[in-house]
Amino acid sequence: MGRGISYRDAGVNIRVAEDALARIKRHVERTRRPEVISEIGGFGGLFRLGGLSDAVLVASTDGVGTKLRLADLLDSHDTIGQDLVNHCVNDVAVMGAEPLFFLDYFATGKLDPPRFERVVAGMALACRENGAALLGGETAEMPGFYVDGEYDIAGFIVGACERAALLRPEDAREGDVCVGVPSNGLHTNGYSLARACVAREAARSGRDPRELYRTRFDELGGVTLGDALLAVHTSYLADIRRLRASGGLRSVAHLTGGGWEGNLPRALPEGLGAHVDRRAWSVPPIFTLLQRMGEVEDREMWDTFNMGIGVVAVMDAGQVPQDALRIGVVEPARGDRRVRFD
Amino acid sequence: MGRGISYRDAGVNIRVAEDALARIKRHVERTRRPEVISEIGGFGGLFRLGGLSDAVLVASTDGVGTKLRLADLLDSHDTIGQDLVNHCVNDVAVMGAEPLFFLDYFATGKLDPPRFERVVAGMALACRENGAALLGGETAEMPGFYVDGEYDIAGFIVGACERAALLRPEDAREGDVCVGVPSNGLHTNGYSLARACVAREAARSGRDPRELYRTRFDELGGVTLGDALLAVHTSYLADIRRLRASGGLRSVAHLTGGGWEGNLPRALPEGLGAHVDRRAWSVPPIFTLLQRMGEVEDREMWDTFNMGIGVVAVMDAGQVPQDALRIGVVEPARGDRRVRFD
Repeated sequence: MGRGISYRDAGVNIRVAEDALARIKRHVERTRRPEVISEIGGFGGLFRLGGLSDAVLVASTDGVGTKLRLADLLDSHDTIGQDLVNHCVNDVAVMGAEPLFFLDYFATGKLDPPRFERVVAGMALACRENGAALLGGETAEMPGFYVDGEYDIAGFIVGACERAALLRPEDAREGDVCVGVPSNGLHTNGYSLARACVAREAARSGRDPRELYRTRFDELGGVTLGDALLAVHTSYLADIRRLRASGGLRSVAHLTGGGWEGNLPRALPEGLGAHVDRRAWSVPPIFTLLQRMGEVEDREMWDTFNMGIGVVAVMDAGQVPQDALRIGVVEPARGDRRVRFD
Repeated sequence: MGRGISYRDAGVNIRVAEDALARIKRHVERTRRPEVISEIGGFGGLFRLGGLSDAVLVASTDGVGTKLRLADLLDSHDTIGQDLVNHCVNDVAVMGAEPLFFLDYFATGKLDPPRFERVVAGMALACRENGAALLGGETAEMPGFYVDGEYDIAGFIVGACERAALLRPEDAREGDVCVGVPSNGLHTNGYSLARACVAREAARSGRDPRELYRTRFDELGGVTLGDALLAVHTSYLADIRRLRASGGLRSVAHLTGGGWEGNLPRALPEGLGAHVDRRAWSVPPIFTLLQRMGEVEDREMWDTFNMGIGVVAVMDAGQVPQDALRIGVVEPARGDRRVRFD
């Protein structure tokens, strides 16, 4: 039956999938926590939950958006997994939870085991750094769905805390202080806009965008534009733990898609907004460079990017640590926008 | 600054995203369980876990593979979300857990809110049917990443059970009986091969594959090939609960990607295999039709598709319910394949 169709003819090669799984096994093993009681290969991952008297599970899912396109363009696949995990970790940390475990979804047209290993090794590294177990994942080979070589990744995280320890937007009050924790770049948001800015500059100067990404810029401290854009999404787990330990932490906003107006109000109750003093910190040069390249309006920038602050902690004014970066105060909301800038 | 770039120019429209979220809100609300203590809009979903003395969380992630391509070809988007959820539910149910909550990842090049609503409404329906809360999700608009109109979806599920209630492959023994529970079609696996079979038949008969999918076949009971292929992945949660209640349930295998050899051994300890009598049930006509169209070898069929059995329960021979479909027995493994057919 040489003329018949096999699954391999149809574009799916089980052997390649097995090679891919074998490659990531040791990375995954290194993320193991004592609570993990499953082995790779089960239908689901098993995590024993103990030690909490009134446990709340906190779950979140995220992707890394078109930062992947840039990673692909620059053949940089070692850190995109860290981006994904850290993004997810921050989303549970701002709710007051500690991360427990992470699962990933990796989809591609044709599985490339070495590249797959680079991506998952990055996830495993970030899982270990944040104390989360890499509990499972799905590797989907979908011929004809993604351009050859391209892939998409999504992450899923579960954290937990005592119910009483949840950080709740309802607890923020007028007069509370907004504390900013710096970001190291765009993190995982606004890459469609960033890439459009670079494309515009390339067109204007008659250069290949790829070459532009590989150019070192003095204003970026001598690193290439591509490297500045691929800086790993910061994990704020340790910062949030520290702010919490200092007392007076009410809630935290993770500045992701939608920028300031899209996220800071998520840490505040209805009726309250924030008054932010933009002179409190310097917007990192990667943002001003992109803005110049794309001639992007100020408001568009702040509604898209984090502009140098990765998370905003809302704190009792009387308990703000001395070394904290005070960037604003909570005030009654006015008008249709809840973040007001000075 | 009319010449500058806005996020909308870059292909991402926040207004459309807001429309999409507004559309799914009521679907999501209907999946609410009392343990859900978060509202839409938080950085993470909150689920209060109580009532278990030694809780184990069971987590799994899945996609629906290239069944999506068929859904797209036939403009059928109402049930693909059910496929995704039911697939995930089965993966935690076969471990012995009850589903708690589900999160989805939806990625597309350009968000189409009505289509997005159809897909998520399907997820919400299946969540409700299985008693799982739709706790969160990520909607990623990635211009230039997916072909316009196409999308990918991934699901993440968390279930829980008492540690002592886990179904464990280690508990299966020689002489145990394999009980099959029927499938209603391909579920979510083998669609790349299935589509290749149909493409081959179309080429041979000089027809458009799309027309072939829309053709009614007598051997399919008069339904179209497309409808037979898009039959919703069965949820086996109720079946597994029932088999468990009858006593003597040791472990369960979900027959997904990799077919029989790829999955049945996952419910057995090392050193044991299964001897399956294929005369115990009739392979549904959708499989024999595909096999004929693609001239696919028998072994390839059984290594890819479920062939009419969605889950295999391994049970104590003395406690098999009278109405159960006995399809085989557990025996020592011989050679490199652990499933032996009669």
